[in-house]
Amino acid sequence: MKRQLHLNLFIQSRGHHEASWRHPDSSALALTDIEYFRDLARRAETGLFDSIFLADQLALADTVAHAASTWLEPITALAAIAGSTQRIGLIATASTTYSEPFNLARQFGSLDHISGGRVGWNIVTSWLAPAARNFGGAGLVSHDERYERGEEFVQVAKALWDSWADDAVLDDRASGHYARADRIRPINHEGKFYRVAGPLNMPRGPQGRPVFVQAGSSETGRRFAARHAEAVFTAQMEKSTAQEFYADLKKLAAAEGRPSEHVLILPGLSPVIASTETEARRLAQDLNELTDPEVGRKRLSGRFGGHDFSHLPLDQPLTPEDFPDPGTVQAARSRTEVIVGLVRREQFTLRQLLAYLAGARGHYTTAGTPEQIADLIEEWFEDGAADGFNLMPPLLPSMLDMFVAEVVPILQKRGLFRTEYEGTTLRDHFGLPRPGTSSS
Amino acid sequence: MKRQLHLNLFIQSRGHHEASWRHPDSSALALTDIEYFRDLARRAETGLFDSIFLADQLALADTVAHAASTWLEPITALAAIAGSTQRIGLIATASTTYSEPFNLARQFGSLDHISGGRVGWNIVTSWLAPAARNFGGAGLVSHDERYERGEEFVQVAKALWDSWADDAVLDDRASGHYARADRIRPINHEGKFYRVAGPLNMPRGPQGRPVFVQAGSSETGRRFAARHAEAVFTAQMEKSTAQEFYADLKKLAAAEGRPSEHVLILPGLSPVIASTETEARRLAQDLNELTDPEVGRKRLSGRFGGHDFSHLPLDQPLTPEDFPDPGTVQAARSRTEVIVGLVRREQFTLRQLLAYLAGARGHYTTAGTPEQIADLIEEWFEDGAADGFNLMPPLLPSMLDMFVAEVVPILQKRGLFRTEYEGTTLRDHFGLPRPGTSSS
Repeated sequence: MKRQLHLNLFIQSRGHHEASWRHPDSSALALTDIEYFRDLARRAETGLFDSIFLADQLALADTVAHAASTWLEPITALAAIAGSTQRIGLIATASTTYSEPFNLARQFGSLDHISGGRVGWNIVTSWLAPAARNFGGAGLVSHDERYERGEEFVQVAKALWDSWADDAVLDDRASGHYARADRIRPINHEGKFYRVAGPLNMPRGPQGRPVFVQAGSSETGRRFAARHAEAVFTAQMEKSTAQEFYADLKKLAAAEGRPSEHVLILPGLSPVIASTETEARRLAQDLNELTDPEVGRKRLSGRFGGHDFSHLPLDQPLTPEDFPDPGTVQAARSRTEVIVGLVRREQFTLRQLLAYLAGARGHYTTAGTPEQIADLIEEWFEDGAADGFNLMPPLLPSMLDMFVAEVVPILQKRGLFRTEYEGTTLRDHFGLPRPGTSSS
Repeated sequence: MKRQLHLNLFIQSRGHHEASWRHPDSSALALTDIEYFRDLARRAETGLFDSIFLADQLALADTVAHAASTWLEPITALAAIAGSTQRIGLIATASTTYSEPFNLARQFGSLDHISGGRVGWNIVTSWLAPAARNFGGAGLVSHDERYERGEEFVQVAKALWDSWADDAVLDDRASGHYARADRIRPINHEGKFYRVAGPLNMPRGPQGRPVFVQAGSSETGRRFAARHAEAVFTAQMEKSTAQEFYADLKKLAAAEGRPSEHVLILPGLSPVIASTETEARRLAQDLNELTDPEVGRKRLSGRFGGHDFSHLPLDQPLTPEDFPDPGTVQAARSRTEVIVGLVRREQFTLRQLLAYLAGARGHYTTAGTPEQIADLIEEWFEDGAADGFNLMPPLLPSMLDMFVAEVVPILQKRGLFRTEYEGTTLRDHFGLPRPGTSSS
């Protein structure tokens, strides 16, 4: 069978364009209304998407006065969505820095049971400085220590998910044997950051473990992804850098002894779609006109560890010297490097940079007809830039609907995308193996 | 209007009798199947119950080989159940010792949005020694420190839920104002155990805060309940002790300046119900014959901090000296005192004690006709022993169905119980006020 494309719907605000929440085409529902999320999940399932994804940050953004930057907590939201969907995968973000492995392993295990094996875990180490202040931290843990802790956290969580063999439950009423005690084992983990005895207090889920998703792009982040991730979300501003990233991560995964097809690379893609290119460009322009440069300025500051950009004029070309050295920013380091590189190359003014980032925060944005979007997808997919896409519709639900109604059929016609779900779990959709346990 | 009775369904295993999972009348579904829980919630909603409740323990019981002692994680399970029900309250247990206030406040806040204002939080301080070993603890935190930490945890969580005024969200597309920043305030908590800046990253839920539920019965536990609890679950083996507990807790609440009707006392009640008393007693006997004394012995040991009861013969009268001094046990202290008192009074053999505890772990058990159960409920309700009951059906779903079909109509006919839901939130059902915020 021909290699198949994978599609994930990234749900955020009323769309990924910063101004989506103000646009008349975006949903009228409140962002605290679970029906908004359920409805989007069902629409994505109609389009046979592999999964939906909820990002997360553990602090309120300082842009809340002028940006719709609130959402429901991902694990609870996906548990609620599970009952309104049958097949689509459900990927929740959760932090290795600010949660306990035992709690997280239980909640994801429970979610895997609840959803019939559809859960994925987007593993983040939480770079946002304000998050630390909600968790007792005086200062932010360093980039390297976050990953060191994350590494150990993943080991512990894996061991907990594997602490029950798949055949441990007997539930034999006649004999009174509920479980085979010798198939449930303590993990007795004693490491630098965690001491966890185990076993987990729950039988193993349908998928064994949730699908591991990761989005770190720094060198440390890539090594982490190469070891653990089964799907990788990545922000790429052009095809050539996406190809470099793709080749690098597949190589790193191979060096870890992992088959390259077990690490799916899914770049972000935020397409404005309309029946003509002119119309698509006009819609993109409408969205840009709804943005507030002061919201963008604050967000930029947040990305650069709180650096003050307030003195910079909006309409003068920027230079790399206007930014702090990315190496000194304890944050999403690779993204800051990309932004500084972009400023150097494009000679953007601050206004232009903010408009660029307003589209999808540094992910790939484009505007075109369904045919043009399908061409782009096919090209990246065939040219070693992507195994599929993390779709970030600029407006929700309208741009998702356009994609499902107009782009998906083209991809299907070209034999690139499924015409029905072939399995029931997220592992099935992604073509990933189900992990065994040491005892099975 | 006449004072109304409140009913909560406590869901555990295939019923609260230790051997329920083996009985042919209990559910055929796996205990990891969310449909089992959804179905029970819908049945309870048909019976117009105020709420359902999921208990929790943060470690696997050592009886798992011979007892169906696994369940889904409560917060994820209730998020999933929310979508299958419309009115019934959803009470989840969560620990103040082993979770972070910011994480817990978010998940309960999210669950309150998801359920349309139906969530309750059963606040526990986690006495189980094995739980500590799943959370890095060398030894268990002492009883007093657990409550001291719990006290501060609740203060932080309340402040987070109150950090958004009810009118903070504007979501005004035309003007571009999403929220009123002056109605969202950091909490800047710096205490002995927690430092949390806040605000919460989510608008306030429909109920403002979840309904606070508590079940500690020690002196410290009662003082905690008097300050915070809006509903109290309690294990009482007879009406007279229930009356003492009821009077004491209402008095303690009054001393905290709280109206006594804002602290509902709900003793556990585990009734075997059949159309004749003889049949009910026979069913109870059938269940007892399915128990395994070695499971009971292990559970007893767990209750007494791991004390070894293995040398005690099953059929010889016990004495209080067979038990460790409850004052030395860092556990659910009040329950251990009740058991030792019972041994002193009843001169039980170990086998008799285990059979007694197998019914509902020290909660009130009875067997009778629907009329007899309704009489008992009315008597406790009218005589100052209860504001309602934490119903713990010995077999699920069969004994819940009997209760809904046969007992509820009698209670309704007597004017003690609602004939339809009058409100939409758990606060409405319990007749509790919605808490304001300092700024509203």
